Amino acid sequence: MTGYPEFNSPLLVLGGAKSGKSFYAESLFETLGPPFIYIATAQVFDDEMKARVDLHKERRKGNWETIECPLMLADALIGLAGKGRPVLIDCITLWLGNILCFSSADPEKAVADLCNAISAADHPLVIVSNEVGGGIVPENELARKFRDLAGSANQRLAKTCASVTLVTAGLPLRLK
Amino acid sequence: MTGYPEFNSPLLVLGGAKSGKSFYAESLFETLGPPFIYIATAQVFDDEMKARVDLHKERRKGNWETIECPLMLADALIGLAGKGRPVLIDCITLWLGNILCFSSADPEKAVADLCNAISAADHPLVIVSNEVGGGIVPENELARKFRDLAGSANQRLAKTCASVTLVTAGLPLRLK
Amino acid sequence: MTGYPEFNSPLLVLGGAKSGKSFYAESLFETLGPPFIYIATAQVFDDEMKARVDLHKERRKGNWETIECPLMLADALIGLAGKGRPVLIDCITLWLGNILCFSSADPEKAVADLCNAISAADHPLVIVSNEVGGGIVPENELARKFRDLAGSANQRLAKTCASVTLVTAGLPLRLK
Repeated sequence: MTGYPEFNSPLLVLGGAKSGKSFYAESLFETLGPPFIYIATAQVFDDEMKARVDLHKERRKGNWETIECPLMLADALIGLAGKGRPVLIDCITLWLGNILCFSSADPEKAVADLCNAISAADHPLVIVSNEVGGGIVPENELARKFRDLAGSANQRLAKTCASVTLVTAGLPLRLK
Repeated sequence: MTGYPEFNSPLLVLGGAKSGKSFYAESLFETLGPPFIYIATAQVFDDEMKARVDLHKERRKGNWETIECPLMLADALIGLAGKGRPVLIDCITLWLGNILCFSSADPEKAVADLCNAISAADHPLVIVSNEVGGGIVPENELARKFRDLAGSANQRLAKTCASVTLVTAGLPLRLK
Repeated sequence: MTGYPEFNSPLLVLGGAKSGKSFYAESLFETLGPPFIYIATAQVFDDEMKARVDLHKERRKGNWETIECPLMLADALIGLAGKGRPVLIDCITLWLGNILCFSSADPEKAVADLCNAISAADHPLVIVSNEVGGGIVPENELARKFRDLAGSANQRLAKTCASVTLVTAGLPLRLK
């Protein structure tokens, strides 16, 4: 599945907060024929999150169909099989936070199921995830648990994906 | 403007705290003819910051003229036009913190103005900035706002600059 | 000392929390003849740390002899001279935390002594350390002090070592 000049699908795009990873991921679709599918994992609880989501929405033009999917990500991906439409998942980190806080699912099993669905995908697929392990150990226990979970998930996803790119200040660096 | 063997000016040097980014940035000037201009954005409020600033000062020899500029960075840069002296700005992150905490200026406009001044610079220019988005989401709202602002600023600066280098443990990695 | 296909010894392996740095470091030993020596710097105080240490222990098979060394790291390394056995130190960051919290030693001198011992090592040596400077400035003063110390130590170690690799989501990136 190499229809893309810049990566082999599936592609994992990693980066810190406000590193430009979503913008980079979206830009990869430009040379392809729309419509594209955007799987949004964010849940909007407050104005701060709403502003962040609105910024992303405004950037994506009419070429994108948005599917909101805070929890059942593997199922959403399986449901898109056979349609041949390029898919962007943004982002894994918010999804993991949702699993941890609003679901009784086992997070590790959820990640394993997602990786299986990613491996089985028959359409171009780009997955955005945050790097969250570059600071000092958080004082908050849930934050430490989340950090470990996110780091493990990124490792699993990187193993599953054909390409991995790290974005820093909007600039891509190919890791795999 | 390629008088430097290692970069095209302007150069953005990114790195985490104590990554060696300032030392690396200063070392780039060694092969050039002094005097150099150092634009310091730090404001000294307490002993901890004083110790940090003193460490930087001690490292820079008599070849450097220091301009203290906590807020009006674009103006300072514009004022250096036509003098042909190599300039180091250290650092963007402290400057953004000053803008956010001690000024009524619009931070995004301040960054845009700075980028315009950088594009117009007719002398070798190196700009140091921190990577601050690699940890987990901060609990403090101002910290989140600052983190977003710093990340956006780094993206804009990276777009504006001809070269971008990421420093990790004192080792440079060319991103652009 | 180039018995390894993938690095010149000594090698510094850097990475964030749960970046896969320990697993990567251990995997480098696979093509070599055991037994290997594992110098563990972790001290187990609570169940959370115990779970983390157990996970690492389970991964290492019978090929590894473990030396627990929370503080006297340079001495431990000097004691292994002349035995010709490959050594893995995991990790510098926990060791620095131990120095800072449970010892009256000068941390900078401890790092300098360690670097001397690393330079003198006559056996293959891999050293794991955390990147901790990629987040926003911590509110806690000890955390800031620790972050600065860890960053400085990584710079010194990177200078001392023949090779440096940054691990992100399990993927190695050669920096030196």
